[in-house]
This record gives sequence, structure tokens and C-alpha cells, in this order.
Amino acid sequence: MLSVDKAVERITDALKPLGSERVNLEDAFGRTLAADARARFDQPPCSVSAMDGYAVRSADQGPRRLIGAAPAGHPFTGKVGANETVRLFTGSQVPDGADAVLAQEDARVGDDRVEFTAQPYPGKFIRAKGQDFLAGQMLIPQGTCLGARDVALLAAGDLAQVDVQQRPVVVLAATGDELSLPGAPRKPGGIVASSAYGLMPLIAQWGARPRNLGILPDRSEAIAALAEEKCDLLVTLGGASVGDHDLVRSALGSKGFALDFWKIAMRPGKPMIFGRLGAIPLLGLPGNPVSTLVCALLFLRPAIFKMLGREWSQPLKPAKLIGTLDASGERQDYLRAKGELRDGIIWARALAVQDSSLLRDFSVADMLIVRPPRAPALREGDAVKIMELE
Amino acid sequence: MLSVDKAVERITDALKPLGSERVNLEDAFGRTLAADARARFDQPPCSVSAMDGYAVRSADQGPRRLIGAAPAGHPFTGKVGANETVRLFTGSQVPDGADAVLAQEDARVGDDRVEFTAQPYPGKFIRAKGQDFLAGQMLIPQGTCLGARDVALLAAGDLAQVDVQQRPVVVLAATGDELSLPGAPRKPGGIVASSAYGLMPLIAQWGARPRNLGILPDRSEAIAALAEEKCDLLVTLGGASVGDHDLVRSALGSKGFALDFWKIAMRPGKPMIFGRLGAIPLLGLPGNPVSTLVCALLFLRPAIFKMLGREWSQPLKPAKLIGTLDASGERQDYLRAKGELRDGIIWARALAVQDSSLLRDFSVADMLIVRPPRAPALREGDAVKIMELE
Repeated sequence: MLSVDKAVERITDALKPLGSERVNLEDAFGRTLAADARARFDQPPCSVSAMDGYAVRSADQGPRRLIGAAPAGHPFTGKVGANETVRLFTGSQVPDGADAVLAQEDARVGDDRVEFTAQPYPGKFIRAKGQDFLAGQMLIPQGTCLGARDVALLAAGDLAQVDVQQRPVVVLAATGDELSLPGAPRKPGGIVASSAYGLMPLIAQWGARPRNLGILPDRSEAIAALAEEKCDLLVTLGGASVGDHDLVRSALGSKGFALDFWKIAMRPGKPMIFGRLGAIPLLGLPGNPVSTLVCALLFLRPAIFKMLGREWSQPLKPAKLIGTLDASGERQDYLRAKGELRDGIIWARALAVQDSSLLRDFSVADMLIVRPPRAPALREGDAVKIMELE
Repeated sequence: MLSVDKAVERITDALKPLGSERVNLEDAFGRTLAADARARFDQPPCSVSAMDGYAVRSADQGPRRLIGAAPAGHPFTGKVGANETVRLFTGSQVPDGADAVLAQEDARVGDDRVEFTAQPYPGKFIRAKGQDFLAGQMLIPQGTCLGARDVALLAAGDLAQVDVQQRPVVVLAATGDELSLPGAPRKPGGIVASSAYGLMPLIAQWGARPRNLGILPDRSEAIAALAEEKCDLLVTLGGASVGDHDLVRSALGSKGFALDFWKIAMRPGKPMIFGRLGAIPLLGLPGNPVSTLVCALLFLRPAIFKMLGREWSQPLKPAKLIGTLDASGERQDYLRAKGELRDGIIWARALAVQDSSLLRDFSVADMLIVRPPRAPALREGDAVKIMELE
């Protein structure tokens, strides 16, 4: 059995980043930058007022003569001379001659005369040209998955479009004659295929484009037909074990399926296939919904990140244990758990039952306690590693 | 000046949840349940095998006669009698008469005879009917924003559709003659309107439907025309201050605008309007992009949550301070900061410059340090509250 870390390495080594495409900034959120994004101009483009107030020369004293007003977007075209002032607003260009702004709260305004109750100094309440960034400066580096603030920053840098990584197309197919779709007639003793419903939004959130083929019957032909799909990654759900009816491996054999590995030292989720079907990488996730989703977090997420050119590391955090845990076996355990904060430290309690078919428990968990193989027994307060679930 | 907490209260008190609508499960991710979701059948629907193996009677001893096989989805229709066994697979219905499953790894199979190297006990490797959930049981309560695991659970409960809260329509409009759109010709001394590009994805992520009107000129008529928009919440960006050219309040006065408040004791973000334009609530966010986005987190997010019927509390966490902070003034400060984990504790360092026009600094921050008004000076290691940024 392969370790989790080795399996991730084998999967990501077998994949490479896709090409790039240009998108409008409106569509850039959640996309991964394919090249460093650089500002197209200085921000601010000139000295601007940080306040509603008055442009003054800091060397002057006493009342000033009001010679004009410059709303933001309507610069004052003259020059501020000795003992003169111009009305400004937040974001207004500071006119020539002035080197400070006094706030309107500190001004008493007569007809064309303004007295101030505060003293200026050079640069007071002025945002200097280029204070936020300069033309040509890198705003966001290649490989960044763009968040909301990033997109706002790119807009501020005057970028109407950006080059982002193409999104890998991920095709999902569940296998199993016991499966039906929600609301459809159920099979005798059968269950509803649920994993794909959880996977679709996760795959989209991770930056790929999911396409769900639904349920394939447990017949070689149906499964072998996957070889014809146009996609960057095939993901099968179920059928990855060694039972006589776990058909994914055998069905794909005839289509030039090159198996890399199929057994991982982890729980939940031991049976998992990775290989290549002609040119298409194939990840065969286990069928129990909890195993499916945990394996997706551990293996599908880094696979997608690799195709997007994004950095990846398993997001483990330190925590302390509530309750006790027995010594563990040969597999790396991912225990569904609930956490709480005590004095800024995360404390985690494993759920009592860890069967990989219990989706309801999984839904209320907020983290996984990650235990390496052959971990010793643990007591209340011992250190553990956790992976938070969104 | 109103406190942040009071302002949130005034805003959310003025709003109420919208109605519900029915959506397909494929479209349920990120939506808020409008009613408790209950399972439509027992899961599993019958006793099923947890392993690839053999159904046996636990009272029997010695080798068993193999009388059939039952792949998942193809139940065995007979009954397991004394010293008989039936081949099962993970998820197969356990046939009548059997009360345990032995794993295939512990079986030696002859022609129609199976010897076992492990002992059964009643219930061994059997997932009992209804072990995950029972028909009629509540799976997920009303008001839950559905995550990926929730959607999978609803699928497992055989729900093809669910009742969710309608998404509030939020209309955005930036004001300011100094503004241009990314890539468009820039105004003299002007800047690019950036906030809406950050707000659009946030509003969608929070569960609402954003519509961006772009930039309105600083003229009363243009702003007053907002009164004709069909939406659940109007959000203006900029123009919320008291300057002669901050027109939102004055322009809307003629259209029956009822002002609730417009000044909040916070930094960044003091000038903020809330009121009602006829039947439509209006939130006037400040124009500097950092202020806009921080105010959106603090006020727009709970406003949307209220219209979705979702619980809300400011997500503050304890942390320790890196560096020092001076005593603070009359306003609640939201300091852009970078954090790191040390021994499981979050440590936060405020960025050196906190000017609300610096979008680049905001983009690299990963949290805000939240300081109440008139907070004392703090030293390295002192306790602070933080709000993580996504």
C-alpha cells in the first residue's frame, strides 16, 4: 500500500499545467494568474487630497483667499499662489503650487476668505503620486488564485483583462448497479448516488470545470466508453476495489489503461485507482461517500491545483485532542471531528463512529484529525494535526 | 457617530428575509435552506455488507456451502440456511437468514465450499438499516447555507429538489466624476473604479445576486434614477461624505429618501449612509476601495445574511500581537495585518501604513486587527481580536 504523500506525489508528477487564456476582469475571480499582473499606471496618478478640505502652501500663515474649487475629476487648472487656497474633495488632484491640505473641519469660510484653526506641513493630508503602486510594478504574481481583493487591485491597476490558466475539465462518472439518482425509482436494496452532488461544487471551487455523466451500469462496455470523453481528468466513483464486481480496472484494461497504483494506506479510502487511459489521467475514487469526498480533498484537489499551476501543500494545522484515541494501525487515519477554540487554540474531538458510509456525521464534522500510520495512543490535551473542512 | 455594532443592528433590523423558492439539488450549493430538510427513506435502506466478503450465520461453525452471489444492486432472493453462505460485495443487501459478513481476505474458496480463518459475531461487517439516517429524520436544519457535504447528504436522502431562500438582488453603483472603467480612457487626474470588481464576487459568495450599474456621474439626476431600480438592496460606492460634491444624500432627498444614519465610529470607513429609498433599503459605502470592502464585510454581509434568513455574528478570533500599537482614538479600528501560526496560536502584525487608499497593501493582508474605540496601547504578545480575510 502506498502512503498518502507518495500517492499525491505520483498523481501530481503525472500531470502538468494547462495553457492560459485571456478573460475579462469581471470573470477573473477564482481564476489562477498565468503571468505576473503589472500596473498600467501610477496609483494615485498624481498627488491627491486625502480629505474634504483646502489646498494650501504650508509656508503661508493666516487667512487665505479662496480662488477656486476642484471636485474630484475636475482639476483646478490654475496655480495656488501666496496666501491663496482652493477647495478640494477627497480624491481631488492637488493643484500646482499647493503642498498641503487642511481639513474642512478646521476651516472657517467667509465669502472668498478662509481661516484655518490647524497648521499645515508639507504633504499634510496628501496622497502622493504612486503611493499605492507605480506603473509597471507587479501587483499580483503568477500562480495566485485571484480573490475579491485581488480583482479590485487589478481593476485599480487599469487591467480590463488578465491571462489566467485554463480550467481543467473534470468528468465524473459513478459506477454501481445499486445506485439511482435522487428522486428516481430506487433499485432493490439500492441507494442514491450522492457523492457527485458534493464533488461538483468542490471541483468548481477548486478551479476546474466539472461535468457529471451520472451513473454508469456495472458493465465493462459502459465503463470502457469513458475512454472517448474529451476532458483533462476522468474521475470514477466506486468500483475501485478488488471485488469481482469492481469493474473499473478490468473494463479499462482493454482500452489501453495504464495503472499506476490502486491501494493507499489510509482510512477512509483504501481502494483508489490512479492511472492513464490513453492520454487522459484517471482517478478512481472509492464509492462510499465519505471516502469519496475525503479522497477528493487529498488527491483530486492537488491534481486540479497542479493542472492550474497552483502551489499545493496539505493544509494541516496543530490542535489539541479532546478525549482519547487508541493506537492506530497500518493506515493513515482521517477521523471526522468537531473542533472548538479555547484561548485561541483549536481543540478537536473525534466523532464516536467513523464508518465511511455515515454521511450525516460527516456533514456535521468541521475538521479531520489526521493520524500517521502506527500512531501511539493519545490522551486528552495531546497534540494532533487537523485539516479543516469548509 | 454610531458604533459598528449599533449600525449593524440598525441595518439588519430594517431588513427581513425574502421568500423561498424550489431548486434542483444540482443548484443547491451555497443556497440557504428555507425549511428543515428531511430524509425520504432509511439509509441504508436494508442491512448491507460493509466489505467484499460472504454472508454467514454467526451460530454456524466450520466450512459453508456457497449457494449464490449478490452483487450490490442484485440482491440474493433466497435464504441463507445452516452452514450456507452467499458471496457479497460492499453495499450488497445481506440476505435473509444471515446475520454476519466475513471478509474475503479471511476466506478460502473451493468449488462450492468456503472455509474461513476468522470468526463471525452477530452484526459483524454489517451496516444496519437506517444506521446513517431514518426516513423522516431531519438531515439539515432551516437556515443552513448548504456546503458540498450537505448537498451530498441531501442527495443520499433522496431529495431531488429543496426549498431555499430567494437570493436578494443587490444593485451596485459607483459615483464620482474622477472614475473610469478599467481599460477605458482615464479622466484628468482620475482613477479607475475598482471596488465593484471586488464586491461582485463577494456579494455572490455571500448568497446574493449582484448587478453592477458601473459609474454614475456626480449629478443629482443620475443618482436619483436609482430609485427606479428593481432590487432588494441598493449599494452606492462613494459620495457618502458631507462634502458639497458628495451627492448621494442630497440627490436622493427628492425621491423620498429616508436617512437612518450616515456616520460610523470606525476607521477605515467613517462616512456610510443607510436609509430607505421608497421601499428599497440603500447602503451608501465610502468610496476609498479599502473602506468600501471593509464596510462591505462589516455591514453588507450581515444585511445579505438577514435577507437570506441566516444567522450572523462578526467572526472574531483571539490572537496575539506582533509589534506594538499606540492607544487608539474615538473610532473602532480595523487594521490590515498579516498573521502567522506559532504553536497553534495566531499572531498578527499590523501593516506599517494603514491609509484607506492603499489597495495593494490590503491585497496582501490576511486579517484585520479589530480594536475598540479608546483602546489602550498594546505591546508584543498582548491579546487582540482579529477578523480573517478570505
